[in-house]
Amino acid sequence: KINGDRLWASLMELAKIGATEKGGVKRLALTDLDKQGRDLVVGWGKEAGMSITIDQIGNVFMRRDGTNNALPPVMTGSHIDTQPTGGKFDGNYGVLAGLEVVRTLNDLKIKTEAPIEVAFWTNEEGSRFVPVMMGSGVFCGAFSLETAYAAKDVDGKTVGDELERIGYKGPQVPGDHPIGAYFETHIEQGPVLEDADKVIGVVPAVMGLSWYDCVVTGMEAHAGPTPMGLRKDALQVSTRIMQEVVAIANRYPPYGRGTVGMVQVFPNSRNVIPGEVKFSIDLRNVNDELLNTMHEEMLAFIDKTRSESGLKISIERVSYYPPCPFHPECVDAVRSATAKLGYSTMDVVSGAGHDAIYAARLAPAGMIFVPCKDGISHNEIEDAKAEHLEAGCNVLLHAMLERARV
Amino acid sequence: KINGDRLWASLMELAKIGATEKGGVKRLALTDLDKQGRDLVVGWGKEAGMSITIDQIGNVFMRRDGTNNALPPVMTGSHIDTQPTGGKFDGNYGVLAGLEVVRTLNDLKIKTEAPIEVAFWTNEEGSRFVPVMMGSGVFCGAFSLETAYAAKDVDGKTVGDELERIGYKGPQVPGDHPIGAYFETHIEQGPVLEDADKVIGVVPAVMGLSWYDCVVTGMEAHAGPTPMGLRKDALQVSTRIMQEVVAIANRYPPYGRGTVGMVQVFPNSRNVIPGEVKFSIDLRNVNDELLNTMHEEMLAFIDKTRSESGLKISIERVSYYPPCPFHPECVDAVRSATAKLGYSTMDVVSGAGHDAIYAARLAPAGMIFVPCKDGISHNEIEDAKAEHLEAGCNVLLHAMLERARV
Ligand SMILES: NC(=O)NCCC(=O)O
Ligand SMILES: NC(=O)NCCC(=O)O
Repeated sequence: KINGDRLWASLMELAKIGATEKGGVKRLALTDLDKQGRDLVVGWGKEAGMSITIDQIGNVFMRRDGTNNALPPVMTGSHIDTQPTGGKFDGNYGVLAGLEVVRTLNDLKIKTEAPIEVAFWTNEEGSRFVPVMMGSGVFCGAFSLETAYAAKDVDGKTVGDELERIGYKGPQVPGDHPIGAYFETHIEQGPVLEDADKVIGVVPAVMGLSWYDCVVTGMEAHAGPTPMGLRKDALQVSTRIMQEVVAIANRYPPYGRGTVGMVQVFPNSRNVIPGEVKFSIDLRNVNDELLNTMHEEMLAFIDKTRSESGLKISIERVSYYPPCPFHPECVDAVRSATAKLGYSTMDVVSGAGHDAIYAARLAPAGMIFVPCKDGISHNEIEDAKAEHLEAGCNVLLHAMLERARV
Repeated sequence: KINGDRLWASLMELAKIGATEKGGVKRLALTDLDKQGRDLVVGWGKEAGMSITIDQIGNVFMRRDGTNNALPPVMTGSHIDTQPTGGKFDGNYGVLAGLEVVRTLNDLKIKTEAPIEVAFWTNEEGSRFVPVMMGSGVFCGAFSLETAYAAKDVDGKTVGDELERIGYKGPQVPGDHPIGAYFETHIEQGPVLEDADKVIGVVPAVMGLSWYDCVVTGMEAHAGPTPMGLRKDALQVSTRIMQEVVAIANRYPPYGRGTVGMVQVFPNSRNVIPGEVKFSIDLRNVNDELLNTMHEEMLAFIDKTRSESGLKISIERVSYYPPCPFHPECVDAVRSATAKLGYSTMDVVSGAGHDAIYAARLAPAGMIFVPCKDGISHNEIEDAKAEHLEAGCNVLLHAMLERARV
């Protein structure tokens, strides 16, 4: 069994970097704070005797040799970047649970046949740079290194330049790195486990996701003298689409999701009718056919709104991945480790994307969920219980040992 | 008659300060660019032999003595701050038309009995700092100097500090300054004159205005795993109110106006359900009773939305002034000057607020409108014809001479 106190202490230590007043963490990908977080974790990895490899997209792999190093490593990992209003556990838990597994193996002087690796992937959150899950996406070839390097934040800074600046543009070619099996522990980020009072979520699949940028262009004009009938109000037209995004998701329960999370209004002055509004759309479903139906309904609604309003409306898909069922062998490894340890458990479909879905394109993969308070994440008040985090890490240890062999 | 070419040349010279790529001007109140614009105009005033007074809120008065300086001055003026996407004429025209009147009187060696003053008022636009029409508002006692000094921009900078920084916190107590009569020339900022093919708008009244800040507070959570039915999506609730603002205005034609111009979404990340949305509401009407009805309907809708959604919604009125009918003597002075000069004319209610409505609380006041292209202002493509600007300035000259006496 792993050391739950040590795991908790490491989580709290890492959470100091970018800590917010409300108890959350703001450590956006490739910022100075991200560098500090990376340095801390790499330092811990070295202390635990692991060797470090960094690839060209900044993914970091910390390796503990096995007795047969010709075997591909059994890998675990996640990310340490956070949302602008993020919590202490999202991603961070997956990385530090992996570290805790290695520390435990060291304590117990256990040698595995296959090597063990703990990875942290670059820019999983996708809130500073799109595409989301960038590091694992480049690693598995879902998109190119060039695409990723060219991605810009709102200030126009690129991933390529920022990686260089913080010293994490490594030499290794992404993907030039075999994987035997991949496991990822994560807080659920939803309310299902807590509601059902279960400790371990076995994850059969992750919902597919479509992200869009929508731009509505009207004509800015003075809010006083411009008669209502002569306006081309980009915000009013945008609000219709924003409402439809939610209406579409509501038509496809229980796994339809629709969210507008990001809005920019131009010129954003209180006495100017908005001339342009840009906003994001996030659609999800665990069934790819339904996800596609949602996509089609949204495009049709935008066409209708365009002709009714006479305003220019552009829509561009900026990210997409299909639903990802995990490998039966890895799902079973998680299920049997949970049974062996005697934790209460249920299956939970993941609504959030995870690096595991890209790792799953290269190797058998599976995930382990633990409950988080009120199902809340992407929020500074995100919280999780030490005993649940410890349980998830124990399941990880046993699932990895099953694959890596002692 | 005034010199239309000289007026145009001065307008184009001032428009270089803060010129935007699209041919507009961005010279927000109390920025470095505002200081440059102020310095240029003050320099021109001195060249025209005027003495300069600056008051504690940064209003600038440029004075040409009369033959009887015991008489209160006949004043004209406007503002030189602009919107973030502003044009060359809004406000600037009123100030430079006043300057052109003085230059013309100098050329023709005309002495007036009462002194003539050209004022420019601080932060008329209200887009960097609220309240709008701040300088003239403090001057007439609509709100206090302390309130104005404490006003903050989005970066937290205050009016008091910014006035000091640009060197325009003068010694004179605002309002400690008699006015005999006040005239203001301005582009119409609406489509009425152009539609009717008239050159001069006589302005009987200005619409009243109510501004609000509305904050909807939900709960930020992850866009993927959070089921639709468990969300507290602050943006979705906000879009209902945003649509109602327009619906209310549409119920009170022809002078009802409703606009949401400014929106901020928190945390503004594409995979986070918005936890908080702040937005502005702008309601106007020329009839105070109807304006109040609109106000009541909006509050009732917000109450209804609050109880239906269960989200916290706060609404605060941040600016209000009632409709302002102008003084019959000044309206007549404009009307008869227009008739004498033979320009085509009609009455136009002003949808935009102007410094004249605050000056009107201290002295008889009136306004002169000229057409602007497509009725567009608060937009970089704002435009006006030199011949119309010249005509408005001639009307100003004659209306002022009638009141100041030769
Ligand atoms: N786990 C997580 O928050 N991933 C970010 C991508 C997503 O929005 O699902
Ligand atoms: N004239 C003008 O644009 N004034 C600003 C205040 C308003 O929005 O009416």
